[in-house]
Amino acid sequence: MRTTTPINFREKFATFSEQWSPKIIAQMNDYHFKIVKIQGEFVWHRHAETDEVFIVLDGELVIHLRDGDVTLRAGEMYVVPRGVEHKPEAKAECRMMLVEPAGTPNTGDAGGARTAEATWI
Amino acid sequence: MRTTTPINFREKFATFSEQWSPKIIAQMNDYHFKIVKIQGEFVWHRHAETDEVFIVLDGELVIHLRDGDVTLRAGEMYVVPRGVEHKPEAKAECRMMLVEPAGTPNTGDAGGARTAEATWI
Repeated sequence: MRTTTPINFREKFATFSEQWSPKIIAQMNDYHFKIVKIQGEFVWHRHAETDEVFIVLDGELVIHLRDGDVTLRAGEMYVVPRGVEHKPEAKAECRMMLVEPAGTPNTGDAGGARTAEATWI
Repeated sequence: MRTTTPINFREKFATFSEQWSPKIIAQMNDYHFKIVKIQGEFVWHRHAETDEVFIVLDGELVIHLRDGDVTLRAGEMYVVPRGVEHKPEAKAECRMMLVEPAGTPNTGDAGGARTAEATWI
């Protein structure tokens, strides 16, 4: 019998509290859907090989780009094109979903202490 | 200057009223993010080459599978694996987002009158 339970964002978010630690909730072909809680500033980085999708589910996210800022609220999404430097920031805790190829590192080309391996929940 | 306007689901849905007519709102690599309004029953079909993601933004969606039904409400998602027959249904109008490779036909292997080419909005 196939699993016929939908993936509920609110329930998934309730299972963890740590910030900047993406959790995989679904896979489509070789892409992962990941949810993450963030607050504060991330590091500037880029993904040379892939676009990256940000969907805000709760709160407000600013994606800093070298040539402008994008402000997203719940019910909004943005695609950061491959190769484009960006720095996510949230003044208050923001809950969002990321879509990108499985194995894409959160810090892209920057690496460093903020690198976190996504795990399934 | 890059576009720094986020994609707002509510605003996008306000631009059309027809049902069963997917509209492309974003592209990530070779994948499309499409929004659609549905009401009533679709046709049984499958996509032999790709998984398909359903994210419900408003209303209630039932995805009938040959071995069970999945009921999704706003804030829930489900991945129909490649090759798996499914039939979406919504008693009242449901607004949802689909994620799948660009060019994936909405009726999969079934074809027929319900086939609709997705257009950008």
